[in-house]
Amino acid sequence: MSSSKSSNVIDGKAVAAAVIKECLTEVDALRRHNVVPGLAVVLVGEDPASKVYVGAKARTCLELGIYSRKIELPAETTQEELIGVVHDLNRDPAIHGILVQSPPPKHIDEEAVIRAIDPRKDVDGFHPENVAKLALEDPTGFVPCTPAGCLRLLKAAGISTTGADAVVIGRSMIVGKPMAFLLMAKGTDATVTIAHSRSTDLPGICRRADILIAAVGRPEMVKADWVKDGAVVIDVGINRVDDPSTKKGYRLVGDVAYDEVAPKCRAITPVPGGVGPMTIALLMKNTLQAARQQTRVV
Amino acid sequence: MSSSKSSNVIDGKAVAAAVIKECLTEVDALRRHNVVPGLAVVLVGEDPASKVYVGAKARTCLELGIYSRKIELPAETTQEELIGVVHDLNRDPAIHGILVQSPPPKHIDEEAVIRAIDPRKDVDGFHPENVAKLALEDPTGFVPCTPAGCLRLLKAAGISTTGADAVVIGRSMIVGKPMAFLLMAKGTDATVTIAHSRSTDLPGICRRADILIAAVGRPEMVKADWVKDGAVVIDVGINRVDDPSTKKGYRLVGDVAYDEVAPKCRAITPVPGGVGPMTIALLMKNTLQAARQQTRVV
Repeated sequence: MSSSKSSNVIDGKAVAAAVIKECLTEVDALRRHNVVPGLAVVLVGEDPASKVYVGAKARTCLELGIYSRKIELPAETTQEELIGVVHDLNRDPAIHGILVQSPPPKHIDEEAVIRAIDPRKDVDGFHPENVAKLALEDPTGFVPCTPAGCLRLLKAAGISTTGADAVVIGRSMIVGKPMAFLLMAKGTDATVTIAHSRSTDLPGICRRADILIAAVGRPEMVKADWVKDGAVVIDVGINRVDDPSTKKGYRLVGDVAYDEVAPKCRAITPVPGGVGPMTIALLMKNTLQAARQQTRVV
Repeated sequence: MSSSKSSNVIDGKAVAAAVIKECLTEVDALRRHNVVPGLAVVLVGEDPASKVYVGAKARTCLELGIYSRKIELPAETTQEELIGVVHDLNRDPAIHGILVQSPPPKHIDEEAVIRAIDPRKDVDGFHPENVAKLALEDPTGFVPCTPAGCLRLLKAAGISTTGADAVVIGRSMIVGKPMAFLLMAKGTDATVTIAHSRSTDLPGICRRADILIAAVGRPEMVKADWVKDGAVVIDVGINRVDDPSTKKGYRLVGDVAYDEVAPKCRAITPVPGGVGPMTIALLMKNTLQAARQQTRVV
């Protein structure tokens, strides 16, 4: 099995590196017009996982020559203060993209904060204006990074989507719904099924899929008998499970029971090293799109 | 067969009449606060079908005690002039709902006109802000009338949607996509598949459906062997087909081959008399929602 396993793995790190390489060219083009693209990341509180993500985003900016501003606010920051910070960034011409790291502390209304971001700087693609643009297939909007990364992985792996049966498990606005929009859009043209926790016979629905996207956040939920032979599986889940044999006491697994599912697949993304690296790469892409749209130089 | 046919028919006229009755109560409640709800319908040009629709909307307003203003503009009206009319209506406190009858003449950019409507008065639910609210399951938005009518028909017929396999044929922003949002939303909880012209094996996909919504605009495309025994079929299509035996020289048929499909169905909507009457009834509902939200009296 190990040979079939290695040949069908979609290498997210390699595809992300290719996206980053495209970004380098785009940064150069902006620089030739004296534009330095800028990304602001706002972090409220001390969530350790959030700190890791924010650090990774800043490092990737540095690597690319994107100006990055990290704004760390105490956990007690009020919603008004946070929205004030966002408004300042909306007005700041050095900043083309704004991201407020999720999740904020519980006293903050995350939706209100997202609405406060200028939609032209909303590189996460969560502002209602960008949600509508995605539904309306308007390419001037920002597509959320994770589903955009999934689509890019399919393309990089040479998977044809036209007329394919795609099943998305999960109906969140972060992944499930935008993934469905992207897959059904003209030019991509998949037949899309959105399944979720209330679906009857989830295994049976998943078995129909030529392309299966798992985005539920439940460790190793998708078993071998949920997957059709020759299917393509994209695993968005990143779940910590206890593992005393490791130094950290846990390991990361996806929503897919990889070891038993992988041998059946035409192609599959691993966790880690699949969708994860794509999310940051697509955030950089969105930041450069924002810089181009705001400066109109390229 | 005729007895099974009559017992499984979802009577759109009767359900629409029940919605209109609810509207009467809502109009009364607004009146007690000295609010007369108002709907403006703008028609550009002389399209005969559009004139029929606009006339029907005005009559239903009259019946309900909703103030209705019909604005007929010549086919040569420029986009700037039309947007000027919309802006006037946006500012007019007697008008709570604005609808620009589709399709406008070809020189008009329909999307730009929709964007010009104040989203709080956009009772068609086509403005990007309302598209986003539907995707985000925000109940303050306006849901497009036809898919809202389809959902209401399912409820009136006692069809349970939770966990059901729903297949929507068609991915338009008028019906297909909003229908999919409504069916997958929390509380409705169907598993939703959006199929379309590029789908491989459309008949096979439709055969999976517990609930099949046809919104493609192709006369009698859905045949008996596309439909599972006991399925519920909602036919959104209204297509004219030549028929020299009729006085008008044509007859109206849906997207479903009714005579052969109906005997297999648990429930089915006819054409005419199914979805059609619901669209105007839901437009009235949206107008009353708009009046309540703008006046905050009820």
